[in-house]
Amino acid sequence: MNLDPTRTIAINADIYAQRRQAAQALRERLAGQGTLVVNLVSSPGSGKTSLLEATAKHWHGAHRMAVLVGDLETERDAARLAPYVPVQQLTTGGACHLELDLVKRGLERLPADPIDFLFIENIGNLVCPASHDVGEHVRVVLVSTTEGDDKPGKYPKMFRTSQALIVTKIDLLPYVPFSIPAVVEDAQRIQGNLTVFQLSALHGQGIAAWCEWLERQRTVHTDCSRSCT
Amino acid sequence: MNLDPTRTIAINADIYAQRRQAAQALRERLAGQGTLVVNLVSSPGSGKTSLLEATAKHWHGAHRMAVLVGDLETERDAARLAPYVPVQQLTTGGACHLELDLVKRGLERLPADPIDFLFIENIGNLVCPASHDVGEHVRVVLVSTTEGDDKPGKYPKMFRTSQALIVTKIDLLPYVPFSIPAVVEDAQRIQGNLTVFQLSALHGQGIAAWCEWLERQRTVHTDCSRSCT
Repeated sequence: MNLDPTRTIAINADIYAQRRQAAQALRERLAGQGTLVVNLVSSPGSGKTSLLEATAKHWHGAHRMAVLVGDLETERDAARLAPYVPVQQLTTGGACHLELDLVKRGLERLPADPIDFLFIENIGNLVCPASHDVGEHVRVVLVSTTEGDDKPGKYPKMFRTSQALIVTKIDLLPYVPFSIPAVVEDAQRIQGNLTVFQLSALHGQGIAAWCEWLERQRTVHTDCSRSCT
Repeated sequence: MNLDPTRTIAINADIYAQRRQAAQALRERLAGQGTLVVNLVSSPGSGKTSLLEATAKHWHGAHRMAVLVGDLETERDAARLAPYVPVQQLTTGGACHLELDLVKRGLERLPADPIDFLFIENIGNLVCPASHDVGEHVRVVLVSTTEGDDKPGKYPKMFRTSQALIVTKIDLLPYVPFSIPAVVEDAQRIQGNLTVFQLSALHGQGIAAWCEWLERQRTVHTDCSRSCT
């Protein structure tokens, strides 16, 4: 392509590289403080908030956790979590995903105390958040048993960019057409190293294994040699 | 704002107005042919494909229906519907919503026979499809009982731009924390004229009322004086 220099503005910068660097800088800074950042992504209503409630109850103060919760409108999820943990609502005003700048502003508004686990509850959307690095150490995708076991192949980027898959609402398995082996096979065909959990936040099954995995991830990804247990 | 004419390109066109006109032209053309266009929108896994299977089985050839089914990847939903009705898969290759041009291309690939009801099964996404008119006469938003009754206020644009709300998977009500009055109140606070259905595509409850409403909508919105029954 021949560009006419009188009609072309040279930007001379890779915007995506700048964004990647900014996300990496946040990741490294928080790792240095012993904070594991977990980006929770899923469809609306897959159980992200319920999982965080169950996680907070399971740890019951054994670890310092905080949550940044994204929504288009309302503060409903923050209100649900506020009895358990420090939480900041990130309201996008209609945007379909969280971006790094909003996450950083939310982080500044959290109490200044040390955080062992910072959870980012993304917008309920199995498409757009897949393309945005918000500075997380691990991305975890949730699929509920009521959504159907065909979702990974239909929304592949979200599964390709995640490190763990949580199948939620397993208490409903007797009542819905859903195969855990089928969803796991479909997801691992896209991302072979995906760690898989099955749980019911409502009834408590599987929460302990999920929390133990988070504790190991904190040891792997952060500089918490004095405080990791 | 002072614009430097040597650095400014005047477009002299309202791109959104062009899109609205193109959608309106398709809507009018299909209304003239007696075809009601229904845009089904929801989260992934709310039951759009299951609703279409149940609708096709209920009518059992009494009306000529066809489906354009959107997905990021795979032809899974088209394969599910193909035993019942003419169907074309629209694969967006990652985009988070359907647009008019893709719908028009899909329509051209359907058999040339007359269609009474053209269903557009949008991408599973409660955010992005709200902003795109694909030439429909009615937009119908689905919320399953397993997604939680707090969704309308959190994703308001989708409910504001819809004419009907279908609460799906009501067979699971005994097992999930979900209140139909609460979800209806939340949705009608946003869109007071929303028509509400409750159904279970799996067990068949509510399908007849939904199909009767569709038949009335066809009479209202299309020029089917000879063929509407």
